[in-house]
Amino acid sequence: MTTTRPRRSKTAAPAAAASPWAPSSVREQQREAKRNAVLSTAAQLFNEKGFHATSLDDIAARLHVTKPTLYYYVKNKEEILIECVRRGLEMMHSGIEASRQAGGSAVEQLMACMRTYTRIVTMDFGMCVIRIADDELPPSSRKALRRLKSGIDMEFRRLVAAGVEEGAIAPCDPKMTAFLIAGALGWIGRWYQPGGELGPEEIADQFIATLCQGILQSPAVPAAPARKRPAAPRPRPAGKRPARKQP
Amino acid sequence: MTTTRPRRSKTAAPAAAASPWAPSSVREQQREAKRNAVLSTAAQLFNEKGFHATSLDDIAARLHVTKPTLYYYVKNKEEILIECVRRGLEMMHSGIEASRQAGGSAVEQLMACMRTYTRIVTMDFGMCVIRIADDELPPSSRKALRRLKSGIDMEFRRLVAAGVEEGAIAPCDPKMTAFLIAGALGWIGRWYQPGGELGPEEIADQFIATLCQGILQSPAVPAAPARKRPAAPRPRPAGKRPARKQP
Repeated sequence: MTTTRPRRSKTAAPAAAASPWAPSSVREQQREAKRNAVLSTAAQLFNEKGFHATSLDDIAARLHVTKPTLYYYVKNKEEILIECVRRGLEMMHSGIEASRQAGGSAVEQLMACMRTYTRIVTMDFGMCVIRIADDELPPSSRKALRRLKSGIDMEFRRLVAAGVEEGAIAPCDPKMTAFLIAGALGWIGRWYQPGGELGPEEIADQFIATLCQGILQSPAVPAAPARKRPAAPRPRPAGKRPARKQP
Repeated sequence: MTTTRPRRSKTAAPAAAASPWAPSSVREQQREAKRNAVLSTAAQLFNEKGFHATSLDDIAARLHVTKPTLYYYVKNKEEILIECVRRGLEMMHSGIEASRQAGGSAVEQLMACMRTYTRIVTMDFGMCVIRIADDELPPSSRKALRRLKSGIDMEFRRLVAAGVEEGAIAPCDPKMTAFLIAGALGWIGRWYQPGGELGPEEIADQFIATLCQGILQSPAVPAAPARKRPAAPRPRPAGKRPARKQP
C-alpha cells in the first residue's frame, strides 16, 4: 500500500480529461480508512457483547452497510479478531517504547509505562487484548500474538529489575511483580466502562499510587474514630505518603 | 439426593437375599462421585486447552469412558461449564466466609481472604472462574453467576472500607482497591501452572506483601551499588518492612 499523494504543480502539463474515479492512491487511502472503521466498530462490539455473540451482521449494521460490503475490507470474523488484538498489542508496545524514550530513572519509566498501559486497556483495541482469551484466538496467529504479549511482560520485568538495582523498588522477584502489575492494571480493561464514575486518568492515578505505596496505612497516621464513614477517595501520588514514624 | 447409609444392627431381622445391586443410597453416592470426576476432569481440560477447544470426547477419553457414558452425569458441555464456574465461585464464597469467621481485625480478615482467593484461583474450578469470560457463559445462567461474583467483590470492598475505618488501610476508594486486589490475585489464575517454580503459598506470600507494602522501596534502605545484579526474591510479610526514616 502506498500513501503518496499525487503531486500538483503550477507548471504541470494540461490536466487530463476529468475522471469520475479518484486516483488509485486516494482510493487506497479511502479503503484503509474504511478498513479501520470496520475494525474499530468490531472491537467496540466485541467489548460490548463478547466475541462469540458478535456477528458480521452486527458489525455491518452499526456501519450502515451490508455484510458483503465488509468482505471487501476483511476476510472473516477471525481475521478481524486477530487484527483487533494485534493493534491493541502494538499500541501497548509503541506506548511503552515512547514512555521509555522520555527517559528518567527506571521507576519513573515504570510509572510512565503503567500509565500508558492503563490508558490503552480502556481503549477499544486495548480492551480486546484483555478480554479475548488466548484460546479464543485462531491457533495460526496465537504464537505471534503471544510473542508480542511476552515482549510487554519482559519490558515490565526489566524496568522492575532496574528499579531494584537503583534502590527505588523494594527487593522482589521482578517476574512476580510484573505479573502483579499486569493483573491489577489489565483487569481495568475488564470492568472499565466509558462514561463511568472515573475516567482512565483518575483510575490510573489511584491504581499507580496504591501499587507503589501499598494498601496499608502508614503507622504515623492516627486511626480514624470508630463508626465514622470511610474517608473519601484520595489518590496518593508516589513519594508523597506521610513519613513512617520510627517504632 | 440422600447420603444416609442403611443402618446395621446386631438385633436386626434376618438379612434379605443378597442383591447384586448396591442399595440406592450407595448408588446415588457413586453417581455423585462420578459426576464430580466428570466436572473436575472437564475443568482441568478447559484450563489446559480452553473451553472451545475441549470436546466431550476429550473429557470421556481422559476418564476412560465413552461419550454416551458422560450423558448419564451431565446434560451437555454448557452444563459442565456452568457447574465448573459455579463450584469455583462457591469455593471462593465459603473460603471467604471461613476466613471472616476466623475473626481478627478487618485487615487481618482481608489478608486471610486474599490468601484464600489466591489458593482457589490456582485450583481447577477456581481457575475456570478466572479463565472463562462472562460472555462465554450461557445467557440463562449468567445472571446467577454474576450475582455470586458480585458478592465476592462486595466482601472485599466491605473489608477494605472497614480497614480504612480502623485506620489500618490508607484512605482510598474501596471499590477501586477491591478491583486492584481482584485483578492482581485473579490474574494468577491465568498464568499459574501446577508444578511451576513457585507454589500457591509462596505466590500468595509475595503478592500479599507487595500489595500491602507497595512496590517502592522504603527510603531508609540504602540504594544497592550500581551494576549489581537484582537482589534475590524475598517476600516481605506485612508489618515487617524496614522502618521508614523521617526525612
